[in-house]
Amino acid sequence: MRITDLRIHSIAMADPPLRSSYGLHQPYALRNVIELESEDGIVGIAETYGGEQPATALESLRERMIGIDAWRLLGDLLQLVEGGASGMERSQTHHVPGENPLDADARTYSAIETAVLDLIGKALDVPVCDLIGGRVRDAVSFSAYPFYKHGGGGGEGEDLREDEYGEALSPEQLVTQVRQMVERYGFKEIKFKGGVLDPEIEIETIKLLRHELGPNIPLRIDPNCSWSVDTSVKVGLALAEELSGGGYLEDPTAGLDGMAEVRKRLVAEGVDTPLASNVSVTSFGDLPEAVKLDAVQVVLCDHHYWGGMRQVRHLAKTCETFGIGLSMHSNSHLGVSLLAMTHVAAATPHLTYACDTHYPWQSEQDEIVAGGCVTIADGTVAIPAAGGLGVKLNQDRLALGKELYDKIPYRKRDDEAEMQKHVDPNWKRILPRW
Amino acid sequence: MRITDLRIHSIAMADPPLRSSYGLHQPYALRNVIELESEDGIVGIAETYGGEQPATALESLRERMIGIDAWRLLGDLLQLVEGGASGMERSQTHHVPGENPLDADARTYSAIETAVLDLIGKALDVPVCDLIGGRVRDAVSFSAYPFYKHGGGGGEGEDLREDEYGEALSPEQLVTQVRQMVERYGFKEIKFKGGVLDPEIEIETIKLLRHELGPNIPLRIDPNCSWSVDTSVKVGLALAEELSGGGYLEDPTAGLDGMAEVRKRLVAEGVDTPLASNVSVTSFGDLPEAVKLDAVQVVLCDHHYWGGMRQVRHLAKTCETFGIGLSMHSNSHLGVSLLAMTHVAAATPHLTYACDTHYPWQSEQDEIVAGGCVTIADGTVAIPAAGGLGVKLNQDRLALGKELYDKIPYRKRDDEAEMQKHVDPNWKRILPRW
Repeated sequence: MRITDLRIHSIAMADPPLRSSYGLHQPYALRNVIELESEDGIVGIAETYGGEQPATALESLRERMIGIDAWRLLGDLLQLVEGGASGMERSQTHHVPGENPLDADARTYSAIETAVLDLIGKALDVPVCDLIGGRVRDAVSFSAYPFYKHGGGGGEGEDLREDEYGEALSPEQLVTQVRQMVERYGFKEIKFKGGVLDPEIEIETIKLLRHELGPNIPLRIDPNCSWSVDTSVKVGLALAEELSGGGYLEDPTAGLDGMAEVRKRLVAEGVDTPLASNVSVTSFGDLPEAVKLDAVQVVLCDHHYWGGMRQVRHLAKTCETFGIGLSMHSNSHLGVSLLAMTHVAAATPHLTYACDTHYPWQSEQDEIVAGGCVTIADGTVAIPAAGGLGVKLNQDRLALGKELYDKIPYRKRDDEAEMQKHVDPNWKRILPRW
Repeated sequence: MRITDLRIHSIAMADPPLRSSYGLHQPYALRNVIELESEDGIVGIAETYGGEQPATALESLRERMIGIDAWRLLGDLLQLVEGGASGMERSQTHHVPGENPLDADARTYSAIETAVLDLIGKALDVPVCDLIGGRVRDAVSFSAYPFYKHGGGGGEGEDLREDEYGEALSPEQLVTQVRQMVERYGFKEIKFKGGVLDPEIEIETIKLLRHELGPNIPLRIDPNCSWSVDTSVKVGLALAEELSGGGYLEDPTAGLDGMAEVRKRLVAEGVDTPLASNVSVTSFGDLPEAVKLDAVQVVLCDHHYWGGMRQVRHLAKTCETFGIGLSMHSNSHLGVSLLAMTHVAAATPHLTYACDTHYPWQSEQDEIVAGGCVTIADGTVAIPAAGGLGVKLNQDRLALGKELYDKIPYRKRDDEAEMQKHVDPNWKRILPRW
């Protein structure tokens, strides 16, 4: 099964004005989609981070991919993520995921791995989860992912999308947003993006969510490192009850030392809320120090930047070994990524929380998967019966995504610029802000 | 690709009178070989520990195996090694490998995994190493594995095998044995089984090996926990130079606390010889304490009892993450196991030493692999071009192995009984002996 062609598609998709500590989402988010074709005309696909760097990195490996047997490609390139000189570097970062130079090779490998596994799975009519070790579940749970949000849909001008959720800049509006999401998708856990408003308002938001939704739905908050250690501890204490029962406090503050200090002070106060991270632990090289300091009790995996699905399986086992929980991180993405996330989650026994996904924020009009949006029902995505990831590309939609990409000026994500444009010309990301 | 049949073959093979701290090898070693047949008549094979327990454990899963698609079986049974209640139990042991009740499920799963991967690989004409993540090397290095040995070949009566190596109970005889092995197989590293004679003689043996073989061949010694902490430190100091340059000191003493104390005292004396183990670390559950104590600098993996090839890949990544080296353990085995070991090693980037193998101690007459003994040349085993493990069974030889098994009284390994029979009726394994 020789690889005969690699096609890299840089696309854009409408993205609503979501707020986070990074700033404000731009009207369009960027993705790269790859197609890897075999001599018998089967096409494996993958979706990864957007803009120029990922496309250039993938392009630079073209010669190593063309002409090789699909079964040999992943071993041939494995030095990008394992056993090489840079395999164990620390990579904790304050960059947005996808723009950390330290895991660039891991991101490149991951996209290739997903496309190869999809290609092989399609050729054999075997789902990817069963190729990489075997599913331990047929459907994967995802969380609702509410954001503070400006009014308006994603996109601009003739490409403006419907604003299904409306503005959400108060606790009450957030509750409405969450109710809509839960109603539509059946989510049973909630991961709330904080780090946007004054911590007192965010505390109030979580408390209101707990009050309105009852005691049985796990709640998490992720302020993306916006808080000092003192503020983190204050919020952790204030939300001790609300975040218990399957919730966690994600990246309240930056860096392993700060996280460890927050943990220590919370435990000293009798609060056992786990601290989760996809910032202070973003590579295997970060784990020893995290373990030593007990800085992180839940790692958020993401095959897109941890070096692929098999590396996530290694990560899960390592976390299980050291008594660390595992959840899954998400960026703005379309259906190809959602299915890749679902397959790796299905084959990961030690997955201790529902996974994050931004998917409900994207618009059906931008979906590149044939057949339209992937179904989320009862808060879960089911493994499709078809082989590989279980979906093919809608080439017309892919073409539209490429047109959008050509039309817009962005070539990398810049939430800070968008904040400066719409909210405050002097806005900068400050850590800690509070 | 539905599984339609499972055949379990308990066999015996001649084994020469090798000495270790466990006692004396019996004239026959036991193995179980399984065949897993699919609806299209393809047969996947695996070799595992011998005697009744492994056969009974495999038999007990028959109903879960028959009728299922091969691609689904490994996920369906994964709870035997992951995500289950017993997945993270400590299992450090003084039992011989293969008889530790704490990793019984891991051993069972491993045999099934190997047979399933061989079946799938044969069906697709894809080597197992490329199924589990992709090879990073086409040939795998193994070590010479010299033992103190009584005169005589394996087997008894009409089944007595040729004694290729002769008696080796002195340093000089050991050197001769190693020279023979290196000459015949081209080994470039040497792992020497100690724990048999007075430590002073074993020190002398290693020193003579170093003197005779020159400075460039890594040397290791494994006394299987025969020594006290004091003796371990004494030997470690005496052999500081001989074990440097790619060697290690394996399981000098029992238990993580003892290993940690040996390490601490050696480092305090400026001796950095890594301590290796397949006794104090035999499961993922042992790793956190080993890391915390810096008790073990090299883990010896073994897919046969670590839960299979994919678990070994997880282990390798965990070891890489925590700065621990990885080597590979061996028991008496035939060609099916050797190839399985070769495939997992080929797909494991973080493999930092040549692997152990008892293979040269077995006789061609007992080999069950079609085509005779697997070739070891230049100290390496090459990945065969054929799919799966790359070999099929010689059914006549398998039948002979079953006949031998029926003829002999052993149903589990008992090196102590053999010592009592031939050397000293009161012999007992004592830890530490020195």
